[in-house]
Amino acid sequence: MSFCLKCGHATEKAIPAGDSHYREVCPNCGFIHYENPKIICGALALWKDKVLLCRRAIEPRYGLWTLPAGFMELQETMEQGAARETWEEAEGKVAIDQLYCSYNIPRIGQVYMLFKGQLEEGAFGAGEESLECALFDEADIPWDSLAFPSIYRTLKHYYHDRKTYDFAKDQVPFHLETISGDDTVIE
Amino acid sequence: MSFCLKCGHATEKAIPAGDSHYREVCPNCGFIHYENPKIICGALALWKDKVLLCRRAIEPRYGLWTLPAGFMELQETMEQGAARETWEEAEGKVAIDQLYCSYNIPRIGQVYMLFKGQLEEGAFGAGEESLECALFDEADIPWDSLAFPSIYRTLKHYYHDRKTYDFAKDQVPFHLETISGDDTVIE
Repeated sequence: MSFCLKCGHATEKAIPAGDSHYREVCPNCGFIHYENPKIICGALALWKDKVLLCRRAIEPRYGLWTLPAGFMELQETMEQGAARETWEEAEGKVAIDQLYCSYNIPRIGQVYMLFKGQLEEGAFGAGEESLECALFDEADIPWDSLAFPSIYRTLKHYYHDRKTYDFAKDQVPFHLETISGDDTVIE
Repeated sequence: MSFCLKCGHATEKAIPAGDSHYREVCPNCGFIHYENPKIICGALALWKDKVLLCRRAIEPRYGLWTLPAGFMELQETMEQGAARETWEEAEGKVAIDQLYCSYNIPRIGQVYMLFKGQLEEGAFGAGEESLECALFDEADIPWDSLAFPSIYRTLKHYYHDRKTYDFAKDQVPFHLETISGDDTVIE
């Protein structure tokens, strides 16, 4: 059961004229409720080859490690969203330089947009949604305690690509992939 | 005035605990209504250096020319969305090969994701949302009758980049830009 955002009447599932998908449509006022994928913006924030990770203080995946990332808000750009999340989750200021990895996760209606950038002065703390944050060398990455497959894949790409590219200076290849399961199975 | 999707009660604007943005929150059932940017997927569908354009049969920008593009749907990838829109608007099958241009349009809560691809067999028609579709050479592009700044910019990038790259074979540079006005002023 669902109700109309505009008038509060119970909605009905219907395919609007000229449309090809079922929507929740209001039989009282005619309002059509579209539901679309959401963008998750985040940062691979680097400081002298180290990567900034956050240990989650919230569900899902409480206690596991992630890159700072979260839902893009209205009235911001993707880059601003990635920098805002880095500040909110890790109290770090990141200078974004390029889009690095993007993941379709159609099963849960999400698209990840992860940017590489430099963590200013290597400074960070821990925001309300993080138990702790830390800068990791490759040897110390908690591969078995990462929160999401998008994070696992991005770190794998990073450690592969940096054999070829200088992440502090170069434009590096952009990776676009689809994660076919949900966002909890590391693959 | 807004109503709760879950229970139909009138909502109130409030900042939920742990959040930093105002949301429509239901005082009856507690449901929080998040509103986030939407993704518009589309294709620069090429056939022997020609570009497939559609003349819009719908508002906004009725009668003006656009690349096939539209809101990404749940349960699809961005590439599938771009191919679906090319089929729906131009009855063309496009083989997507890479993400080419992305535009933040924060003022209207949209992010464009435009992919380059090859139009299979150069075949197309005109979908319900198009008055007509056509393949254009550079000299014939209707620069003064393009629907959106995202389309104008993408075509400008294409005609610039193809001096350097073979769009049928090469990976070409990805462009990420922010359009600061709304989506009607060509800039």
